Amino acid sequence: MTQALPELRQRLAEIADLSSAAGLLGWDQQTMMPAGANEIRAEQMGTLSGIVHERFTDDAIGRLLGELEGEEERLRDADPDSDDAALIRVARRDYEKAKRVPGELAVEIARAGALGHQAWVLARERSDFASFLPYLEKNVELKRRYVALFEDDGFDDPYDVLLDDYEEGMKTAEVAALFADLRAELVPLIAAIAERADAVDAAPLHGDFDPAGQQRVVRAVLERLGWSPDGWRLDEAEHPFATSFGPTDVRLTTRYDRSYVGTALYGAIHEMGHGLYEAGVARSLARTPLGSGASLGLHESQSRLWENVVGRGRPFAGFLHGRLREAFPDRFGSVDAEAFYRAVNKVEPSLIRVEADEATYGLHIILRFELEREMIAGTLALRDLPEAWNARMREYLGVEVPDDARGVLQDVHWAAGEIGYFSTYALGNLIAAQLWERARAELPDLEASLAVGDGAPLRDWLGERLHRHGRKFPPKELVERIVGGPIAVRPFADYLRGKLTPLYGLD
Amino acid sequence: MTQALPELRQRLAEIADLSSAAGLLGWDQQTMMPAGANEIRAEQMGTLSGIVHERFTDDAIGRLLGELEGEEERLRDADPDSDDAALIRVARRDYEKAKRVPGELAVEIARAGALGHQAWVLARERSDFASFLPYLEKNVELKRRYVALFEDDGFDDPYDVLLDDYEEGMKTAEVAALFADLRAELVPLIAAIAERADAVDAAPLHGDFDPAGQQRVVRAVLERLGWSPDGWRLDEAEHPFATSFGPTDVRLTTRYDRSYVGTALYGAIHEMGHGLYEAGVARSLARTPLGSGASLGLHESQSRLWENVVGRGRPFAGFLHGRLREAFPDRFGSVDAEAFYRAVNKVEPSLIRVEADEATYGLHIILRFELEREMIAGTLALRDLPEAWNARMREYLGVEVPDDARGVLQDVHWAAGEIGYFSTYALGNLIAAQLWERARAELPDLEASLAVGDGAPLRDWLGERLHRHGRKFPPKELVERIVGGPIAVRPFADYLRGKLTPLYGLD
Repeated sequence: MTQALPELRQRLAEIADLSSAAGLLGWDQQTMMPAGANEIRAEQMGTLSGIVHERFTDDAIGRLLGELEGEEERLRDADPDSDDAALIRVARRDYEKAKRVPGELAVEIARAGALGHQAWVLARERSDFASFLPYLEKNVELKRRYVALFEDDGFDDPYDVLLDDYEEGMKTAEVAALFADLRAELVPLIAAIAERADAVDAAPLHGDFDPAGQQRVVRAVLERLGWSPDGWRLDEAEHPFATSFGPTDVRLTTRYDRSYVGTALYGAIHEMGHGLYEAGVARSLARTPLGSGASLGLHESQSRLWENVVGRGRPFAGFLHGRLREAFPDRFGSVDAEAFYRAVNKVEPSLIRVEADEATYGLHIILRFELEREMIAGTLALRDLPEAWNARMREYLGVEVPDDARGVLQDVHWAAGEIGYFSTYALGNLIAAQLWERARAELPDLEASLAVGDGAPLRDWLGERLHRHGRKFPPKELVERIVGGPIAVRPFADYLRGKLTPLYGLD
Repeated sequence: MTQALPELRQRLAEIADLSSAAGLLGWDQQTMMPAGANEIRAEQMGTLSGIVHERFTDDAIGRLLGELEGEEERLRDADPDSDDAALIRVARRDYEKAKRVPGELAVEIARAGALGHQAWVLARERSDFASFLPYLEKNVELKRRYVALFEDDGFDDPYDVLLDDYEEGMKTAEVAALFADLRAELVPLIAAIAERADAVDAAPLHGDFDPAGQQRVVRAVLERLGWSPDGWRLDEAEHPFATSFGPTDVRLTTRYDRSYVGTALYGAIHEMGHGLYEAGVARSLARTPLGSGASLGLHESQSRLWENVVGRGRPFAGFLHGRLREAFPDRFGSVDAEAFYRAVNKVEPSLIRVEADEATYGLHIILRFELEREMIAGTLALRDLPEAWNARMREYLGVEVPDDARGVLQDVHWAAGEIGYFSTYALGNLIAAQLWERARAELPDLEASLAVGDGAPLRDWLGERLHRHGRKFPPKELVERIVGGPIAVRPFADYLRGKLTPLYGLD
């Protein structure tokens, strides 16, 4: 018995190392790799993920987990917060899920996702949904086969199975209830703002911004938030992301748009939020399955908290304005901090999710969540998806979709076979507001520190409450521990109304 | 039978992918990785190399190779240059060597090399050979245990076993004979030059050279030799190297010394030679054990050919001078092409191998080869190594070694357990001169193309004769095929005398 835990740890550490190597192949592909190497890199990445799957579903892991059943209980009895007990719990959960999927189906899902991605790139370029439809049908069919593997597991809804892959323990009914409340808040708020659209002007963010100057500003801002050359990198990527290969090897990417300063600055602060979470996980959890964020929703809560709640909040926006004024005196000399604050908080219904503001963003997600449920339930024929998309964009956002490229084809997720993922973005916004409410109550000088660009007090608070635990606790339990209740809409709605009511002169 | 070859290919392709991922971990560590990640990166690299070893020594590989014994002969009968027959031959050779080494010894050698490296870094800093001695003793003892594993293989000399790991089929007696000839050429040549040391002035290479300007020159020069952004990268590293993860993913590194333009320029041309070899291997050999250079000596022949024979030859040096004059008009405005050519060919006995010129370099190697043989034979007590080193430096180069940091502790190889490696550097010089002699005979416009910086004719010739074959042929056979005879000293000696006699006004 005593040997089983070290042996499990050793096997999981090797799997973590292989996953890090696979992650580095991916990071390198998007930031450093010569374009000519795309084909061979795909082979290399395929091989590594296959070996990770093979080693993780090895029967020896199952045997060790079996041997450790009593041990897990004993460990938790001795210490309810035992790292080792959590390690066994999470490894068992991941193992049982991975083991349930026959190797051929896993390969077929991976291949269909890769082919779907390729087809989607072309289809989006040509705004040609019909050419993409067979690939989407394949992905949905495979996801339904995947769901069927778990039908005896007591899920209430087939879509629960998919949600659980991205947000452990989250139920479709819970998300639906949250999103109903959220939609009830957002639709009238956005309608009211639409009548006073001219009250806020985003023009200050547009101009001609030398990328080198933007990079200096971004670097200086991130350093105030916790970035350091000893444990972090910042590079460029066409589709920015954050990743890490250990708590002292966090890699952010951003993209510099010469004509719009918001892309790099707020994009980098967003990725910094993800990075701070990874960097904050306890060192003792490195090279274990506990060594990263607890769920996609919690991860997104961190990026959204720093990007939106902090980055578009008055204190920190004032600090950002000062840095921009130093770097771009021609543009920002005549824009005061209040005008900058207003500009970064402009609300305007638009077509593209990734460009949406804080208020309209949730409706983009709700639309996707609803369509996904119908796709998986089989109540929406996939050929009718563009029509359903466009109708809902009109209903929720009052926006006419001119073509599928700017409609149903805009996101990569479905093409890559990722169905059930979108909800976590909106859950992240809700959790971010809940964390902010709690942090403000506990940190009296929070806004004063942010006004001078100092991220340390909030970072330390998040580190203590959230980051250090990694995947030790199920996400729902973790939220409960920190904010004293389940994920809820009210703090986000209050936060949004509190900010937008004065900005737009709403009643 | 027909299934054995595809299965072997598939297994070897996966091992190649894992090796590429391990290589990327190493490249990243030296060029990109935040310093704080050193410890976890060592774990990741250890895991990957362990898995590569484990998969390559899997009994299934042995079984497949056994099944393919007849197939190899049939393939070679049908086509003496069969890729598949070569694949089986090389895989068998590598497998049998790897399989001979017990897992525990492989681990012990790796660990002792890593510890030796750490100890060496400190010992060199403090010039403290005594603190390094126990680690060197361990490495030598392990190498002797390694050699003993092969004692029934018909090697004539224990040192043959080590040579064979770096230069397949090379014998100690052959190297000793070559080096005896080489020493007989070099010692009097260098002595004659020493009497006319002032005839050549290296001052033009020293000054204040903005690294950004150096980088532009280096980039422009490499592009003329075949570098392109589609398949190559050039980055900075403290200890420059070249590596590749496929024929269209070649990565060079260099180092910019603000006060000496030779470091970056000639260092980059050197690494470019290695890169051209890797980039030139036939696409069909990628993801097989044949997909890289044939031996260390042949690899070094490429770096030395481009760095020295081309780069320090009059035609290409004239081109380089033009680029430097454009980039650094203050420094090179008053230095003409002839003065530059003379400067880059200055011969001067010195302490440090990696800074040595073309002529004295070979003596640094001969000294190491002789000491290595005595270390492995046990005829030299390791504690007496510094004294032996210093005595030979005096004898061969007329140089007094002031301390061990600039003597026996200068190189990383022995610390890392790499004994038998050094000879390949000098063999590379010899092969480079042989290739050059042959290329000049076959390419009448060779020097004219190099005078305008055009590397294509030589690169294409090398590609056709050498590069495309990868590891298909044993290195000796490959040399024989190209130059019509074995590795020899005469072409190198002629080349060196031909250049240095007029430069130094020797008789």
